[in-house]
Amino acid sequence: MFFASDNAGPAHPAIMQALMDANQGFALPYGADDIMTRVTARIRDLFEAPRASVHLVATGTAANSLALACMCQPWQTVFCSPVAHIHEDECNAPEFYMGGAKLTLVGDSDKMTPDALRAAFAAEETRGVHGPQRGPVSITQVTEKGRVYTLDELSALTAVAREFGQKAHMDGARFANALVALGCTPAEMTWKAGIDAVSFGGTKNGCPGVEAVIFFDPDKAWEFELRRKRGAHLFSKHRYLSAQMEAYLADDLWLTSARAANANCRRLADGLAGVPGVQMLHDPQANMIFAHMPRAAHKRLSDAGAMYYVLDGDVNTGDPDEPLPCRLVADWSISAEQIDQFVALAKG
Amino acid sequence: MFFASDNAGPAHPAIMQALMDANQGFALPYGADDIMTRVTARIRDLFEAPRASVHLVATGTAANSLALACMCQPWQTVFCSPVAHIHEDECNAPEFYMGGAKLTLVGDSDKMTPDALRAAFAAEETRGVHGPQRGPVSITQVTEKGRVYTLDELSALTAVAREFGQKAHMDGARFANALVALGCTPAEMTWKAGIDAVSFGGTKNGCPGVEAVIFFDPDKAWEFELRRKRGAHLFSKHRYLSAQMEAYLADDLWLTSARAANANCRRLADGLAGVPGVQMLHDPQANMIFAHMPRAAHKRLSDAGAMYYVLDGDVNTGDPDEPLPCRLVADWSISAEQIDQFVALAKG
Amino acid sequence: MFFASDNAGPAHPAIMQALMDANQGFALPYGADDIMTRVTARIRDLFEAPRASVHLVATGTAANSLALACMCQPWQTVFCSPVAHIHEDECNAPEFYMGGAKLTLVGDSDKMTPDALRAAFAAEETRGVHGPQRGPVSITQVTEKGRVYTLDELSALTAVAREFGQKAHMDGARFANALVALGCTPAEMTWKAGIDAVSFGGTKNGCPGVEAVIFFDPDKAWEFELRRKRGAHLFSKHRYLSAQMEAYLADDLWLTSARAANANCRRLADGLAGVPGVQMLHDPQANMIFAHMPRAAHKRLSDAGAMYYVLDGDVNTGDPDEPLPCRLVADWSISAEQIDQFVALAKG
Amino acid sequence: MFFASDNAGPAHPAIMQALMDANQGFALPYGADDIMTRVTARIRDLFEAPRASVHLVATGTAANSLALACMCQPWQTVFCSPVAHIHEDECNAPEFYMGGAKLTLVGDSDKMTPDALRAAFAAEETRGVHGPQRGPVSITQVTEKGRVYTLDELSALTAVAREFGQKAHMDGARFANALVALGCTPAEMTWKAGIDAVSFGGTKNGCPGVEAVIFFDPDKAWEFELRRKRGAHLFSKHRYLSAQMEAYLADDLWLTSARAANANCRRLADGLAGVPGVQMLHDPQANMIFAHMPRAAHKRLSDAGAMYYVLDGDVNTGDPDEPLPCRLVADWSISAEQIDQFVALAKG
Repeated sequence: MFFASDNAGPAHPAIMQALMDANQGFALPYGADDIMTRVTARIRDLFEAPRASVHLVATGTAANSLALACMCQPWQTVFCSPVAHIHEDECNAPEFYMGGAKLTLVGDSDKMTPDALRAAFAAEETRGVHGPQRGPVSITQVTEKGRVYTLDELSALTAVAREFGQKAHMDGARFANALVALGCTPAEMTWKAGIDAVSFGGTKNGCPGVEAVIFFDPDKAWEFELRRKRGAHLFSKHRYLSAQMEAYLADDLWLTSARAANANCRRLADGLAGVPGVQMLHDPQANMIFAHMPRAAHKRLSDAGAMYYVLDGDVNTGDPDEPLPCRLVADWSISAEQIDQFVALAKG
Repeated sequence: MFFASDNAGPAHPAIMQALMDANQGFALPYGADDIMTRVTARIRDLFEAPRASVHLVATGTAANSLALACMCQPWQTVFCSPVAHIHEDECNAPEFYMGGAKLTLVGDSDKMTPDALRAAFAAEETRGVHGPQRGPVSITQVTEKGRVYTLDELSALTAVAREFGQKAHMDGARFANALVALGCTPAEMTWKAGIDAVSFGGTKNGCPGVEAVIFFDPDKAWEFELRRKRGAHLFSKHRYLSAQMEAYLADDLWLTSARAANANCRRLADGLAGVPGVQMLHDPQANMIFAHMPRAAHKRLSDAGAMYYVLDGDVNTGDPDEPLPCRLVADWSISAEQIDQFVALAKG
Repeated sequence: MFFASDNAGPAHPAIMQALMDANQGFALPYGADDIMTRVTARIRDLFEAPRASVHLVATGTAANSLALACMCQPWQTVFCSPVAHIHEDECNAPEFYMGGAKLTLVGDSDKMTPDALRAAFAAEETRGVHGPQRGPVSITQVTEKGRVYTLDELSALTAVAREFGQKAHMDGARFANALVALGCTPAEMTWKAGIDAVSFGGTKNGCPGVEAVIFFDPDKAWEFELRRKRGAHLFSKHRYLSAQMEAYLADDLWLTSARAANANCRRLADGLAGVPGVQMLHDPQANMIFAHMPRAAHKRLSDAGAMYYVLDGDVNTGDPDEPLPCRLVADWSISAEQIDQFVALAKG
Repeated sequence: MFFASDNAGPAHPAIMQALMDANQGFALPYGADDIMTRVTARIRDLFEAPRASVHLVATGTAANSLALACMCQPWQTVFCSPVAHIHEDECNAPEFYMGGAKLTLVGDSDKMTPDALRAAFAAEETRGVHGPQRGPVSITQVTEKGRVYTLDELSALTAVAREFGQKAHMDGARFANALVALGCTPAEMTWKAGIDAVSFGGTKNGCPGVEAVIFFDPDKAWEFELRRKRGAHLFSKHRYLSAQMEAYLADDLWLTSARAANANCRRLADGLAGVPGVQMLHDPQANMIFAHMPRAAHKRLSDAGAMYYVLDGDVNTGDPDEPLPCRLVADWSISAEQIDQFVALAKG
């Protein structure tokens, strides 16, 4: 009963098998492997973007930081949600890679609104050289609170960035979960909605560790390659990244896994809806639930070894009915039995 | 009638004369000049801090950025007001010098409160290596809205920093204006109130361009010297910095000038209080006024060549009575006649 | 017949199997996995260093850059060979991670001598804050020209660093190849010879991609953890790094593989010794050969699909006997048949 | 008898008077002062470069570091002499401002030759993303050993840079001394010889502290402005920089001062030529002498309070005739009497 994160489950067996299959003979290093050639073609095809540049790295923080460094000068600021992963969970890696650029926090929610974004852009008056200069917006899709921007919402945000002459990045660590939730195409959720570059996640959806960075306009491709090497993120035995991504995209495995994760989350949410005292922050749209859990239920679950995050700021007052704010994440590999067992324990 | 800033008036004649006096013969470069020896002794004496290390630079942004770089690791975050100069007016210089550290904005005002600071420290839960790590607090005295922290307020803020194991920096670009407003000693406003390092401004109070950085614990002295040189802020002909600072501190010129600036501001505020339609954000405590000015008055003043800042976000609706948010800064050199003429024009 | 590099061959099947075995159920992320606990214990045991801190990353450049960033301030300079990987092959990654520190090139060979190192330290007179300040020495073992420092040579170099108050780093991308060449223990080749930190390579010796950074004095352990996260090198699904390293060290696989690679290199060298016109730069000590190859032999080999590096600066004069400077690297997986076929082709 | 450096003498009285004259009333801050408008026009006229962008900073290290940061990406390397000021005397400031770029040392002398430069460019084979990428050349005129590149030599060096698609920077800390030595125009010594940007020094030639950075192609002008602010080098009371530069350029003061310094150096050299045992490294071309001084002469001079640098690596063997390597720099303010007194003391 592991619901702590989608970064702790097993990799999909088909992806592991692809690693084994790739482990034959010699392969050109540093991204010149044949598998990477196929991965690039496949991603261009999937995204209906024949000119896109495609680059692989092993961590989501590397994908975000390197992509943003290509989009943001050191004297600029990136606009993002105050709970964005790039702000809260990357130990200043974006600032490091961008050479000291800022992040400007937009609004007070996981989802930026066009009005809040416009106000933030407007407030960031640069007064010549004195203030931080405006830079790109970075949109987290799925948000860190488990919500999904609609296509209209995405388009509205990127339109605001364009009003101010800026570009748009998508942190798609859970890209697939959002895509299947929206039922749209990759192109629709990205460049057709005004996104210029995307961190296309694999790790949270069944890969051991691979993320693609995709630039729809390839003019930054060579700069990205240099930044990746300089950041020490270029794998010599690159085929072990390529093989993960190839298997991830083969036979719609990435979509199947994301649908499974979202469905597991739905089953869990439906079950928890029947638990007295459980309150959900909002109806889950992808694979994450934010809920208040009664302390007595939490104790039963903990005692049984269930794992999930209890969020910041908890103070135990000793009242067993006092709700406890929690985050629960479902991945593709959780079984219906585990979910049902979890719900049963919560019910008590 | 120049009230745009205290960085645009003339330098005090006594300081200019000191530059002339210093211009005799050869002097050892790079801070080894005899004048600097006297400046260090004088500042240690003034601050009752015989072990303090003292360093001169030419700009306030250099003083702040270099001081903070000695106090904050690249993976940490500095706590400051959302209108702090280091956040709004230094084009990411602190982030550059700190190697990509963050600034965490505390509360929604120019003055941080202990509660808001404690909440900000507490919210910056680092969750191991994932979040930005907590760093020092930086306190702007006088604030960017012209207010002055009391000694109790300063002590309360630095106490919060210490609760979390962190140090405290003071951006004292208008140190003298605050000091004479409080009527306390330099020691009381700094290390006795828990401040570890101070950017001690001269430029806004009658110097052509000099700021001292003072560390009360000299363990960072050598690191500062290296960072200053690496930042290209070490003057070869250093005597022209030292001479400014020596004259600034001689015969209490710095206090006299600050008292003059504050008194000029008081005269202006008192005059504006009698102008119909003028509303002050708060009663000025040092040398800055934030006020709403009727548009008709603004037009008369502008036509007469008066200069001051109209603040962000103005939209002219065509209504001559609609108030216009303005900032007016008085320096030591403004004459009573200019102030009275300004008030008379405002009255119409 | 692939002799281009030891970063292009297959991973050892036992290591791939370990990845499969690790892919069971949920595991704590970010280095908290059980396998990592065992890896740390194993490395401490192997190195007879019970207090050592152990950290895993995926690339050798990350290992070097992060280790050096913990050992060298931005205003210092690292002493290394002019052909060191950190200088020639990492696209300024060390400088990026160190915040702009320099590399000082020692002597004109792949192997630094104590005299050349002492001269370089002495020449780097800092003249107060003006010059780059002295920093650590970084020693590449095996060198980039395939030679191995003896234990006495290592001790002599680290002793020079200590004369100047500095520490010593070992770039051990081919650590195992050197170790089996010397027939010594890991402790003897590192801390007993004065090495403070080592980049302990796995990738070039049969792993898909894993390197350990080992600090014998753990006082930098937490800083390393923060720098790794900030550098985006902390894997969420860390078990896939740990599992590689565990299998690499199990049953002396790392030593067996290195012995195989060195033996393959020896077989190749012995074969080439019988090829007319081939001149070796020096007798190979590990798994790399630097040799001049007659052009006619090179053409036969190229036509047959053999791969190896032709070194910089070649100008084809059209003379078929003119020697061509080449680098040939043998990994553990090359077969005797391939080697013999290569030699036969070279002979013509 | 101060010959230690041209950064320790007094500023020229005319420049000090200009500071006094500029100290009237209010002036727009941050470079918007009227004097700066005139300075820009004057420099464009002097350099026959009507489109040039002109920027002032207070230190030569700031001029060099900011100019190079606009010309060199963090993954590139700057080509310069091994004794260049940017390499030996700026405590890694260029690397800091460039975000971790390298310096590649060309040849083994203060003067780069086209052949050595071409060899250095050629050797810096980048092998795709792996090696440092080629960046601009930086030429020190006057060199750090007191020699002056001829116009043909400058053109030959910049032509080599262009062969490799790179630009050329001139560190002109002693620009005026070189110019009067060559008897050419500023345009001839810069853009007509292929120089793209110049650090145009004032501090070593009679200013308290001001340097101009000039870009002949202004496409980097705005980036420079942002980098200057972010580097904390933008003066609020900018008029005190502008006024120095205006007076420096008025009535050919800069040329007069440089001619005086060079003539003083010539007088000193001619005098020293008659001192038994003095050996000059080469005949001085500007205002610096590198000479071996007999120890007995050195003792007489030291005892009399004469100041100059004894160079690195001296070991006193006790032999009074053993020569001592020294650097002597003449500025505009040294009197003939002091020079003659120095020579007389040297003669004994």
